Amino acid sequence: MASSSSPAYALGIDYGTNSCRSLLVDLKDGREVGSTVFNYPSGDLGVLTDPRDPNVARQNPQDYLDGLEAVVRGALEQAKANVAGFDAAQVVGIGIDTTGSTPIPVNQEGTPLGLLPEFKGNLNAMVWLWKDHTAHAEAAEITKLGNEIRPQIMAKCGGIYSSEWYWSKILRLRRHDPKVFEAGYSFVEHCDWLPAVLAGDTNPLTLKRSVCAAGHKAMFSTEWGGLPDKEFLAKLDPALADLRDRLYSEAHVADTKAGNLCAAWAQRLGLKEGIAIAVGAFDAHMGAVGAGIKEGTIVKILGTSTCDLMIAPDSKPLADIPGVCGIVNGSVVGGHFGIEAGQSAVGDIFLWFVNNLVPDSYGATPGDKFVKMEAAMSGQKPGASGLLALDWNNGNRTVLVDHRLTGLLLGQTLHTKAHEVYRAYIEATAFGALTIINRIEEYGVPVLEVVNTGGLSIKNATLMQIYADILGRPMKVSRSEQTCALGAAIFGAAAAGAGTVADIQSRVTATREKVYYPISENQTVYAELYSLYRTLHDAFGTAAWQGGLYDVMKRLLEIRARQR
Amino acid sequence: MASSSSPAYALGIDYGTNSCRSLLVDLKDGREVGSTVFNYPSGDLGVLTDPRDPNVARQNPQDYLDGLEAVVRGALEQAKANVAGFDAAQVVGIGIDTTGSTPIPVNQEGTPLGLLPEFKGNLNAMVWLWKDHTAHAEAAEITKLGNEIRPQIMAKCGGIYSSEWYWSKILRLRRHDPKVFEAGYSFVEHCDWLPAVLAGDTNPLTLKRSVCAAGHKAMFSTEWGGLPDKEFLAKLDPALADLRDRLYSEAHVADTKAGNLCAAWAQRLGLKEGIAIAVGAFDAHMGAVGAGIKEGTIVKILGTSTCDLMIAPDSKPLADIPGVCGIVNGSVVGGHFGIEAGQSAVGDIFLWFVNNLVPDSYGATPGDKFVKMEAAMSGQKPGASGLLALDWNNGNRTVLVDHRLTGLLLGQTLHTKAHEVYRAYIEATAFGALTIINRIEEYGVPVLEVVNTGGLSIKNATLMQIYADILGRPMKVSRSEQTCALGAAIFGAAAAGAGTVADIQSRVTATREKVYYPISENQTVYAELYSLYRTLHDAFGTAAWQGGLYDVMKRLLEIRARQR
Repeated sequence: MASSSSPAYALGIDYGTNSCRSLLVDLKDGREVGSTVFNYPSGDLGVLTDPRDPNVARQNPQDYLDGLEAVVRGALEQAKANVAGFDAAQVVGIGIDTTGSTPIPVNQEGTPLGLLPEFKGNLNAMVWLWKDHTAHAEAAEITKLGNEIRPQIMAKCGGIYSSEWYWSKILRLRRHDPKVFEAGYSFVEHCDWLPAVLAGDTNPLTLKRSVCAAGHKAMFSTEWGGLPDKEFLAKLDPALADLRDRLYSEAHVADTKAGNLCAAWAQRLGLKEGIAIAVGAFDAHMGAVGAGIKEGTIVKILGTSTCDLMIAPDSKPLADIPGVCGIVNGSVVGGHFGIEAGQSAVGDIFLWFVNNLVPDSYGATPGDKFVKMEAAMSGQKPGASGLLALDWNNGNRTVLVDHRLTGLLLGQTLHTKAHEVYRAYIEATAFGALTIINRIEEYGVPVLEVVNTGGLSIKNATLMQIYADILGRPMKVSRSEQTCALGAAIFGAAAAGAGTVADIQSRVTATREKVYYPISENQTVYAELYSLYRTLHDAFGTAAWQGGLYDVMKRLLEIRARQR
Repeated sequence: MASSSSPAYALGIDYGTNSCRSLLVDLKDGREVGSTVFNYPSGDLGVLTDPRDPNVARQNPQDYLDGLEAVVRGALEQAKANVAGFDAAQVVGIGIDTTGSTPIPVNQEGTPLGLLPEFKGNLNAMVWLWKDHTAHAEAAEITKLGNEIRPQIMAKCGGIYSSEWYWSKILRLRRHDPKVFEAGYSFVEHCDWLPAVLAGDTNPLTLKRSVCAAGHKAMFSTEWGGLPDKEFLAKLDPALADLRDRLYSEAHVADTKAGNLCAAWAQRLGLKEGIAIAVGAFDAHMGAVGAGIKEGTIVKILGTSTCDLMIAPDSKPLADIPGVCGIVNGSVVGGHFGIEAGQSAVGDIFLWFVNNLVPDSYGATPGDKFVKMEAAMSGQKPGASGLLALDWNNGNRTVLVDHRLTGLLLGQTLHTKAHEVYRAYIEATAFGALTIINRIEEYGVPVLEVVNTGGLSIKNATLMQIYADILGRPMKVSRSEQTCALGAAIFGAAAAGAGTVADIQSRVTATREKVYYPISENQTVYAELYSLYRTLHDAFGTAAWQGGLYDVMKRLLEIRARQR
């Protein structure tokens, strides 16, 4: 690697749902010297869909490869234009983050079946994107069996195994397209495959798997010897037990080197052969690192949904925290448990509201409507509308882990205005966020600092102030707008030996000057409102609550299903 | 009066909040041969307001007199144009309905103080319109004292005396403008004053008072010797005890003759001197008669709010029905208890929604939006949206009698559309209506038939079908669009001796051919949804409910009041 005084750069590549993006980072100070986006050309904004089944969401692995070349070359060109004396040889490592669980059926060589001519046009041979929901029946089956015979495994994923996750999708494929399943020698996560591609060896038996993906989505833990045992898998389907031998028994933190850049890809990308390729991980986890995660800091990635991440040292035991999405040792950084929580919808609630229930008197476009609603609410004090909402329009991921919850808005009068409802929804998402923080603290992990990242944290000052007032902590905002790619670059650098993740973070991550501090009179009112939120939350969200309100939302969904 | 074979007509005059309207009715068959509207010229659409206090709502009595002449002459002119051989001398009687409680301070001659030059410009000397809410503190005081020392009186008005009612307004005047109060020799209801004006004698000690107004708004009952006793009134204010002697000790059913048309007004109106003038009553009560009310029939007047009326024979005792607005013998028709219930907001909820939360993709105007929303929901089955609402945006009048309740909408997802919310609000108002019917039936008054009247019943077929499905009874719609004025005309005819109210009703009232019948598969689903509605209704609406949800809405209102 380059010495500490000579220029050194790392490349982070962030694979999202519709596009991928590169970020070339100066390891001295985090300066972002190049960044390019590539929109996946296949399907509908990069997603392969099936008009007969709205649950289908697949991707074309060719898009990943084409995008890789485009975004790396684009970033390098920008750097050459931006930085005098820049040389691609100064790039010391590459890190990659992706969505997940996004498993890919591959053949014995690790080639995605979707790239093979014999599977052309078969969506089942393609990449199963995180938001593919075809496997809901299989998820329910895994959940049921897991809770019956492997409760200790199920406890780590909140008692419910999701249709979005690794085993659900594989079991679905086995059941519904056995030909493709049989052709699938192994299944690799998107974040595992690309580092192996760059390293020039995609042998599925030896490529380095991400502990982030393995632990959060595939029930992998050293506590029970890796992936779930064969007996359990065989009860789901004997073919899964056989498959287990062709998967993996080790998984790695992302600061591990997955390999060195092979000659072919070095040439294709214009980079130096042999530089370090880090083990991959999921976007949110690397994003937390790019936002400067450390002990005591919760990183909130505020988007259409949110992902909240914390780390706690693995030197002392950490209890299961009921309702969080997962606790996986090393999923964020080495030597620490990664604690993942999240809200099923935040920005999505605002988008739904502005698109469906805001009159044009607020403006002609959603953007105009948001601006005018924020202006209209700025003069209002907390509680002045008399409204209170639950943030459950897309279910509740943490701490109730119940996707069969729905929204609630209470306190409407004949004078209620759209901007007041919008504010109530912002507040509801903040109350949901506070519920997560409180839960984590109750289990012994103090939350001293909140660092926000993602579009909402940058664009929506009203929201950030409300979050400060409700969470009762200063709200910081990550300096980088590309924290996922920045985190990936940090791992690329760490894999290259440029320092520990913490060292590199201290040089390349920062928060913005603008910090949102809680306003104490608002805090007082919001504390009162939160107690009312919790009453509604517990009444409608917990089966143990007296009075049967818990059943109201469930029965409405049952009736809805019957009547549609 | 005219013999049964020669043409005979009666005039009904309906005084609303913004205008008054005449209806000239052929007593043979109910044909409406003339009808004119007069918009009150004073104030804001006829309402005198005070920019410093949004609770103020007064009227100018001169508007009533000017309107009387305009609408009667207008109707007569139309009849002359419409009916060959029509002669104003064929008009046998006049009935009048008004809003209420709408008390007028009058001098010893019964002249409204607001007509006297010395009180020019003083809003307190004007008519105190039903929706004047300045007397909320006085209402609370009367409620508190009444429940302490006269619980049997308070039981008749649901335990809460309203700021809209007679004594609250008089006590408010006494407290806040003693000069006007002292100049007020007596206080007459709007519906009492106009018949006396037509009869040429407005002496407040002798003019015939309406039992409808007296019983529903002034705590009058023969059970306790008329108005509340002096001891009770003196505890509120000694001046009220003194005033009691200048009020009334008798009150009358509207088929009673208030007097005969005096010469001066006969000339002014172009009618025959000496024809019968009926005792007045409130609009809803006369409207129920115009809609054909009879034992077993509930009449629903569907407007911005609703008023539901039933009658039960006074030949057998009728228990207090908890939560109805009032039970007054003779308030609708003689020989029967009038039972009044209602919903604080129905059309108002839809108007609020369309004006505040419906995007222009449904249309440019509220009317267009309603049409497009109804079209969009027509293909949806009950329960298919998964939404459930409470109809409490303006509180709950019956059966909870709690204006400090607010709205609730539950079941929103990221796919919820505005027309689905609109439908949920329609359903919520129907569930509220069913709650009223169930309550009345539980106390021994069977509800066999529902006759609807008012704008919504005529214009909104979607709503009427949903009501049929939820109320589980055929929905009939009154033939006349002017049931209040028609009811007033019926009383004018009855006072003239043209028959009993029931006889005249059988000739002049009818329902439309189109009847909305319950669809049995919808009924089944709505029965399920109603049980969920009742869970929410009881949880949020009754203090006895376990779990403290009742407090949520109250505490939100407290916080709102503090923060505004």
